[in-house]
Amino acid sequence: MSKVCIIGLGRVGLPLAIVFARSGLHVVGVDTDARRVSMVQQGHMPFHYPEIEEWLYTTVQTGALAASQSAKDSIQSSDVVVLTVGTPAGGQYQLEYSQLHSALKEIASTDLHNKALIVRSTAAPGTLRDIVLPMLISSTGLKPEIDFALAACPERILEGQAHRELYELPEIVGGIGPISNMIASELFKKISPEKKILTTTPTGAELAKLFTNIYRYVSFALANEFAVWAENYNENAREAIRIANEGYPRSRIPQPGFAGGPCLGKDGFLLDNGTFSSIVSVAWKLNEGIPQHVVSVLLKELGSLYGQRIAVLGLAFKADSDDIRLSPSQKLIEILRSYGANTLVHDPNVAGTLSLKETLTAPDAVILATRHSAFRNLAQEIDQSGCKLVYDVWGMYANAKFTKAKYAEFGSTH
Amino acid sequence: MSKVCIIGLGRVGLPLAIVFARSGLHVVGVDTDARRVSMVQQGHMPFHYPEIEEWLYTTVQTGALAASQSAKDSIQSSDVVVLTVGTPAGGQYQLEYSQLHSALKEIASTDLHNKALIVRSTAAPGTLRDIVLPMLISSTGLKPEIDFALAACPERILEGQAHRELYELPEIVGGIGPISNMIASELFKKISPEKKILTTTPTGAELAKLFTNIYRYVSFALANEFAVWAENYNENAREAIRIANEGYPRSRIPQPGFAGGPCLGKDGFLLDNGTFSSIVSVAWKLNEGIPQHVVSVLLKELGSLYGQRIAVLGLAFKADSDDIRLSPSQKLIEILRSYGANTLVHDPNVAGTLSLKETLTAPDAVILATRHSAFRNLAQEIDQSGCKLVYDVWGMYANAKFTKAKYAEFGSTH
Repeated sequence: MSKVCIIGLGRVGLPLAIVFARSGLHVVGVDTDARRVSMVQQGHMPFHYPEIEEWLYTTVQTGALAASQSAKDSIQSSDVVVLTVGTPAGGQYQLEYSQLHSALKEIASTDLHNKALIVRSTAAPGTLRDIVLPMLISSTGLKPEIDFALAACPERILEGQAHRELYELPEIVGGIGPISNMIASELFKKISPEKKILTTTPTGAELAKLFTNIYRYVSFALANEFAVWAENYNENAREAIRIANEGYPRSRIPQPGFAGGPCLGKDGFLLDNGTFSSIVSVAWKLNEGIPQHVVSVLLKELGSLYGQRIAVLGLAFKADSDDIRLSPSQKLIEILRSYGANTLVHDPNVAGTLSLKETLTAPDAVILATRHSAFRNLAQEIDQSGCKLVYDVWGMYANAKFTKAKYAEFGSTH
Repeated sequence: MSKVCIIGLGRVGLPLAIVFARSGLHVVGVDTDARRVSMVQQGHMPFHYPEIEEWLYTTVQTGALAASQSAKDSIQSSDVVVLTVGTPAGGQYQLEYSQLHSALKEIASTDLHNKALIVRSTAAPGTLRDIVLPMLISSTGLKPEIDFALAACPERILEGQAHRELYELPEIVGGIGPISNMIASELFKKISPEKKILTTTPTGAELAKLFTNIYRYVSFALANEFAVWAENYNENAREAIRIANEGYPRSRIPQPGFAGGPCLGKDGFLLDNGTFSSIVSVAWKLNEGIPQHVVSVLLKELGSLYGQRIAVLGLAFKADSDDIRLSPSQKLIEILRSYGANTLVHDPNVAGTLSLKETLTAPDAVILATRHSAFRNLAQEIDQSGCKLVYDVWGMYANAKFTKAKYAEFGSTH
């Protein structure tokens, strides 16, 4: 097991490819995106992830890591194939497995004999058992466990933390049998012999991954509900949450803020394919409603937003990331535009946005929408911009002094 | 500040009275229940709490703790009055403050000069500010902070753990001003000089308490939703949750089981007085639906329940407690009876229930409903009872071998 093919060079696949390559494995990363493949071939990160850039450069230089657009050849010459393709939710929040099926077709068209296939993409429970396995059996005629190995090993890394967490976090291995479990476990042990392996069934692994994400997402929704209640009672949610948590062993309530992005919001729908009114769907409704809540506060403070210049700081869904997929900030901007506002958007990590200076040129209001570290010390500059209102989704400027602008914080009326 | 009057000798008031008495304060506990007062006067616990019995006996013997039915005299002769009366939800889940108002009337009829009043009962946000304070001002004509002190110091102790947690957990102090904060802080510092005091506003304290409980309650509801999903996918929720949590810093998902009792379920309604569809109300719906879920499994396994003998082990809402208020087990029993089942109920802590032997006499099914330690090693005895089905709400017997009865566990179809 020395050659690994990773299908998908996105935010899951590329960091894993780099870490595998650093662990003594020969890795080839495959992607359909020519620009992305060419950047990796030159040792350059195709997205914002400064902590891992040098590792990429070095592993490409030493030949441990290669990139290719040709799935078939890469699969053919590998012992292990890891699927990290996107499994986004469709327009009606249905399963959207077209990338998964394309990859499976490529895999089935090669000789699967003595290969191991690992599905690392987030998937609905039962995907490996009821979709991937029957498809491979019927299209190759091979026997699982005997001719090929198959396991669900879902990713649970925080975006931007793979360089640390791939070494430290336990790996969930849901093989279709003991041989698949053994092969997948050995693969991840290469990253670190101390890495803890948790083996379970394929569907158990898929469930555990979704439970992990949904638990966080529901916690965020609850914090956001608390924020709305605190506003109703003219209190400060952040303060009450801090007090509820401090020194108390049974509280770990997160602080309120935007909750979204390509994983957390969608994952509930992968689980929630039933018909009853679940806590997950209410959590979704709540988190998705926060951008509109922000707009409502602006309406109360500024009157009509028509023609007003609204500066939005941050477009990424996550602090210090450039990932704008399903970002609540983007949703906020779209709502503001629906109200006729002129939006001025700045994100230091996102190309095509305005500069900070342009954004802070005579705005009527400024919204801090993403908790980027670069925004931490901007309070005075914002106050000097001439805006009437500063709306702070993250409470980043709760201790700053605004002398000209009015300051409003999500979850507080103080 | 040497004399403290505690109004309410229930599961909040009595342990607090005992701990205060052990801390060098003179304490008188007041209750309208003659039997309860008389038991305390004799040094006997009126409810199941073995860990604190000796402390009660000793503090009564030394005269540090007294009990009385006369609120007025006891208040009159005290420096600090602590309100721990019940604030249950009404039949339509509205505020039910009759006990609070009776106590406030007694307090207002004494001379409040130089006294401190501490509200420790769970209360809706704004209760101290919008109900207690105006009532005291208008009925006594006194000036808050100058003539009397007033603070919300909500209880956050686990039932049955007061003897440990009153010493260890931080205390939330929400005074109406700095003097009230100081007096209330000093009082709780008597328990232990190391006790951490978190000061905030009265409404902030009420919110922090509710956030604490609701966070737990919603986590339990989510675990129960996960259990139902795992059953739908023919998987084991407990196993998937264990794997999701193990070694993973962002997961602390509780295990599924009944969630109810007099505090957690109700507290959401104290907060949730608005009109939007909140996560809290869905959590309530979910947790309240689990007893019916259990009955549905029994129906599937046994057919009609009419005339069947169903043994239920555990009536209390909580392990090793005798507290049956709003217990999901009680709700389960009522549903079973609606279906025409003959229920046989045993709880070692609850008087008036059958013996274990009577309960396990020829039952058709046995339900483990409360996680009492006394039930831990009963698997074989249950298996020998001749029952067709064992339903285990808590997964207590997941590793036991049932040779005659079929075993079913909440959250699993294995």
